[in-house]
Amino acid sequence: MQKPSLPPDRCFGPDPAQKEIARHLHGLTAELPLICPHGHVDARMFSDPDYSFGSPADLLIIPDHYVTRMLYSQGIPLEKLGVPRRDGGPVETDHRRIWQLFAENFFLFRGTPSGLWLTHELSEVFGVEEKLDGGSAGRVYDHIAAQLATPAFRPRAMFERFRIEVLSTTDAAADPLAAHKEIRDSGWKGRVIPCFRPDAVVNIEAPGWRSAVDALANAAGLEIHSHTDFIRALENRRAFFRTMGAKAADHGVIEAFTTELTGAEAEALFQRALRGKLEPDDARRFTAHMLMEFARMSVEDGLVMQLHAGALRNHNEAVFERFGTDKGCDIPVAGEFTRGLRPLLTKFGNDPRLMLILFTLDEATYARELAPLAGHYPALRVGPAWWFHDSLNGMTRYREQIVETAGLHNTAGFNDDTRAFPSIPARHDLSRRVDANWIAGLVVRGIVGMDDAEEMIRDTAYRLAKKTYRLE
Amino acid sequence: MQKPSLPPDRCFGPDPAQKEIARHLHGLTAELPLICPHGHVDARMFSDPDYSFGSPADLLIIPDHYVTRMLYSQGIPLEKLGVPRRDGGPVETDHRRIWQLFAENFFLFRGTPSGLWLTHELSEVFGVEEKLDGGSAGRVYDHIAAQLATPAFRPRAMFERFRIEVLSTTDAAADPLAAHKEIRDSGWKGRVIPCFRPDAVVNIEAPGWRSAVDALANAAGLEIHSHTDFIRALENRRAFFRTMGAKAADHGVIEAFTTELTGAEAEALFQRALRGKLEPDDARRFTAHMLMEFARMSVEDGLVMQLHAGALRNHNEAVFERFGTDKGCDIPVAGEFTRGLRPLLTKFGNDPRLMLILFTLDEATYARELAPLAGHYPALRVGPAWWFHDSLNGMTRYREQIVETAGLHNTAGFNDDTRAFPSIPARHDLSRRVDANWIAGLVVRGIVGMDDAEEMIRDTAYRLAKKTYRLE
Amino acid sequence: MQKPSLPPDRCFGPDPAQKEIARHLHGLTAELPLICPHGHVDARMFSDPDYSFGSPADLLIIPDHYVTRMLYSQGIPLEKLGVPRRDGGPVETDHRRIWQLFAENFFLFRGTPSGLWLTHELSEVFGVEEKLDGGSAGRVYDHIAAQLATPAFRPRAMFERFRIEVLSTTDAAADPLAAHKEIRDSGWKGRVIPCFRPDAVVNIEAPGWRSAVDALANAAGLEIHSHTDFIRALENRRAFFRTMGAKAADHGVIEAFTTELTGAEAEALFQRALRGKLEPDDARRFTAHMLMEFARMSVEDGLVMQLHAGALRNHNEAVFERFGTDKGCDIPVAGEFTRGLRPLLTKFGNDPRLMLILFTLDEATYARELAPLAGHYPALRVGPAWWFHDSLNGMTRYREQIVETAGLHNTAGFNDDTRAFPSIPARHDLSRRVDANWIAGLVVRGIVGMDDAEEMIRDTAYRLAKKTYRLE
Repeated sequence: MQKPSLPPDRCFGPDPAQKEIARHLHGLTAELPLICPHGHVDARMFSDPDYSFGSPADLLIIPDHYVTRMLYSQGIPLEKLGVPRRDGGPVETDHRRIWQLFAENFFLFRGTPSGLWLTHELSEVFGVEEKLDGGSAGRVYDHIAAQLATPAFRPRAMFERFRIEVLSTTDAAADPLAAHKEIRDSGWKGRVIPCFRPDAVVNIEAPGWRSAVDALANAAGLEIHSHTDFIRALENRRAFFRTMGAKAADHGVIEAFTTELTGAEAEALFQRALRGKLEPDDARRFTAHMLMEFARMSVEDGLVMQLHAGALRNHNEAVFERFGTDKGCDIPVAGEFTRGLRPLLTKFGNDPRLMLILFTLDEATYARELAPLAGHYPALRVGPAWWFHDSLNGMTRYREQIVETAGLHNTAGFNDDTRAFPSIPARHDLSRRVDANWIAGLVVRGIVGMDDAEEMIRDTAYRLAKKTYRLE
Repeated sequence: MQKPSLPPDRCFGPDPAQKEIARHLHGLTAELPLICPHGHVDARMFSDPDYSFGSPADLLIIPDHYVTRMLYSQGIPLEKLGVPRRDGGPVETDHRRIWQLFAENFFLFRGTPSGLWLTHELSEVFGVEEKLDGGSAGRVYDHIAAQLATPAFRPRAMFERFRIEVLSTTDAAADPLAAHKEIRDSGWKGRVIPCFRPDAVVNIEAPGWRSAVDALANAAGLEIHSHTDFIRALENRRAFFRTMGAKAADHGVIEAFTTELTGAEAEALFQRALRGKLEPDDARRFTAHMLMEFARMSVEDGLVMQLHAGALRNHNEAVFERFGTDKGCDIPVAGEFTRGLRPLLTKFGNDPRLMLILFTLDEATYARELAPLAGHYPALRVGPAWWFHDSLNGMTRYREQIVETAGLHNTAGFNDDTRAFPSIPARHDLSRRVDANWIAGLVVRGIVGMDDAEEMIRDTAYRLAKKTYRLE
Repeated sequence: MQKPSLPPDRCFGPDPAQKEIARHLHGLTAELPLICPHGHVDARMFSDPDYSFGSPADLLIIPDHYVTRMLYSQGIPLEKLGVPRRDGGPVETDHRRIWQLFAENFFLFRGTPSGLWLTHELSEVFGVEEKLDGGSAGRVYDHIAAQLATPAFRPRAMFERFRIEVLSTTDAAADPLAAHKEIRDSGWKGRVIPCFRPDAVVNIEAPGWRSAVDALANAAGLEIHSHTDFIRALENRRAFFRTMGAKAADHGVIEAFTTELTGAEAEALFQRALRGKLEPDDARRFTAHMLMEFARMSVEDGLVMQLHAGALRNHNEAVFERFGTDKGCDIPVAGEFTRGLRPLLTKFGNDPRLMLILFTLDEATYARELAPLAGHYPALRVGPAWWFHDSLNGMTRYREQIVETAGLHNTAGFNDDTRAFPSIPARHDLSRRVDANWIAGLVVRGIVGMDDAEEMIRDTAYRLAKKTYRLE
């Protein structure tokens, strides 16, 4: 029996003809495994065969900043949600009380992707059969807790049940990838691969930069006294990541700005960074230079290069001081790619060995810059609707603003980009529904035929991600 | 009998299932009074029980810059529309000729919100039963003129008939609020409250700044020789406004830029302003500093803070010289909130006493900045689609681009923002229709259930405005 | 029999009621000739009565950078598509092989305007009855080649069959307009007019500037030693263009920035340009100054002024070096009009003799700047959705974001803007379908009545372009 909150045709447009086509196209995706080429799930979930998710609040509330930020925005202190403080000070520890508070405020998520994902997850993953609110909170809590205690809710079992073909984590340059090794050594067949994310050693003005560089040196088994050493250490780690199955690197920056420094300039700048004597604009220029270096490395070693641009991190200093990073305080800024990427594209954009995927938080760049760029440069693909835009309307706008100019084959397929492992099926399903509905809209308006439409849904749901991330 | 130009299901999408739900939801709003927490109606309409609107042209054309700018853009001189010149030079005084010219060009308003509002107003407020054009102009004029001569078309009677629960005017810092006092003293029960708008004393480079400061000093009964005096005078006026029922302050700026000056910096800058010896950037920095001060005052006195950013005023110098402000010559510029508001939000954004409502004229900031900010900071709400965006498509884009990230409860409900009093029901009705149709779209796509939808329409039509503006 | 790939109701929304109205409105356009006031068709097609388009690849692939860029973006070298190299090096010359490669990759155009146009063109212009893919490629090639060999596929015959009322080319300031003269002298009745596009003599930092100025001097029969000479030569050429039927001038710039230089400043800057000793910002300021000059000339001589802003030309240096301009390497940048056009609009924006049409590649400026500007200044119109935005979704966004504020009568009607002559009917048909569907959406939602709708579709399909470009 279908629960009333999860209608089978959800997310499809109201027109009966379009809806029928959308249902058909969505149905074709049922047999396609999930490709998860970019995300933030902790690999330790899979290295320990008995890993437990903890309580329902541990699973669904405390670590999910999409959830906690919304409650916080309406005046609920993060302490009451059990979010740990950096100073170890007291926060709510009664997970039933946290859950009750969440349930009473679940109406805040009406019309949001978090609301959709959670409703899907409760119903389809945990089999909850009533709507979550203050009245049902206790029963729902008990139901989930009971499920979580069963072997079927160990991460490996869920990974298999979810039909995940491959799952990429995201890992610092110095990470020893111990959990990935354990997974590999365990004989379990799930494919969990790392992704090389060296942001911590690139951002030379961050307080932890020097210790991140030391960790990198240590991991690479090299000393880092120069820019040349630094580059060599990074190349060393990339080679190691590749032996561990990595197919991609990822770079998070506030702006998509690239510039080429001479060897001498780069060395001088790096020495200033080592001495802690940065000049104005050094950090910006170093990041811009390193993007060039990483593109060169990708050309050479074949790791797909991802560029996530546009988030001003830790905008709310008080929340950052008290609770640390990833608490919903990262706020986008306006983006620019055309001028900023020109040096990189001039050097590498026509090279068939490079695969560079661009992500933006500024939708104004979709039709204006990203689609024209990706519709021309062989090395470019547009990454899926990211973060705040990974929603029904957000993904629809993405399709409507990008595909006409870039063409579908210059898009990178779907990423769930999540740290919330049990939400993965919900996220893929929402994406597949949005795409099915979008493609059905093309069919019903006579833009493409049904044969083309069936190819397109397989592309968006499975093939494009696999091809773009070189997962074949 | 319904007039053909005003179909009962107007503004709803074409799908029959969605339309039926939209009709139901819109029907629920019929019993809800109108909350008008931000607007520009003249309070004198209500202090004088016999106030008359004048001729149909006085009411619907001459003071409405939405109307006159459109006619002007097609080559019709403002003089021919009876718009008064600053130099008192001759303009058309035959209101029947003005009306005729307007009616002959009413086709210019096809598909515009002014067209929708006027059609609603003519039909529902004045009972006009034929379409306005050159042929019907005279008859329609006579019909409206006859209605305006009746007691039912005195503002107080209309206020009651429109079921306005509260109406906020917008008033300069030095305004004695004489009309508000008279309303209060008259025993009439209509709730008309002031709003504190001190722009004239904040913009230190405007020609009239010095006299505005003198007026402020006079109103506050203080001398203003220093920044400290200036702040004290503003606090004094805010206290007075609060005694007169004010619940909010309002600030119009070209950019949402904030910065904290030290006391010495602020004092030095203010002294330069008093001496008329401004340095470059002084005006920009003073406004940025004053926004910080006004946020502090709002924290202390509880007035809701509104920030309207993004209009470059009086872009057309020739029209400004000849006819003055508010003639359709204010043109938006690109907006930025993430970096600009950070100083203010760092200091006050987590304070539950602050309620700060952000308005933008740059829709690119909806999903990129405003929704993420309001979806995190407890002090923030996103104001409704403003000015050029207060239209069917504009309000739809607002919902689609903001709610997924910010959540409905971080939006501020509807403002009619009008100086055209008789258009108020039309404006609220359009907004309620757009929201009913948007929510119906969520129901018909299975995103929310009908019970949630019924809560949502009551929120958008009534409760959110009342709560956000602390009107309870 | 209708081919399955070209359904009669294509591009209309799925709702049956809206679709029926859209079909009716689209039907009204069947009798309206095509107005082509801006494009890049080569006039020599019409001066030579026996002009041949060459092979199907010559016609549909090699010169169409919309087509070649998409194939290039997926890794197909331009050489394999027969695109000529600047150095005359070898490229594919077997046009059947080029066609085969194109056909095998035609799936890349799913959901793109090029896909729609080509499908329309193959079916309606050439009578192809099967879908283009690798299997059908040879047959389709033969079919088109056979058609092209017939007299019915000479450009003049097609011009008449397409019911083109007027076609404007785009021509350099120094162009002798020889083909235009030949057309006129030939007695053929087709109206082919030039458009004055002096970009090459305005961009003082381009390598070819000096020779372009020499050509201008030569064409004008004047020597150019000073800014005054330069202006006189331009005025001379505009007068000549007008004698040849020109109704408009066109200006392509990266930003809509205007500024007024004094005569002395302009002269000094021009002398630096002649000496090749430019100072920083000279090129930007000279372009800004020349826009003011061209507006003045338009006021005086009545040529409609077009401003195309926002393309960063030849972004991909490697492709530019190898293949030259117009290879899909022009990428948009963020736009600004409010501040940039203020000097020009202050001086000329209220002058009824000026008609200035603004084009943008940054859709964020539609609702934010262009609609408010055009909805106020008598001299302004918003040009149609341009280049990357000349698509089903792009044109829909244009209508939805502009008309509510600007009003339909401040838009300039449709331009096909194409160098691909046989695609003209497809492009106009797509535009007419999008508009029919948009207007039908207004009818079905009760925003306008059917009588208004019928006026609107005639405006968008025919009358606005004719009126705005003064083609009556």
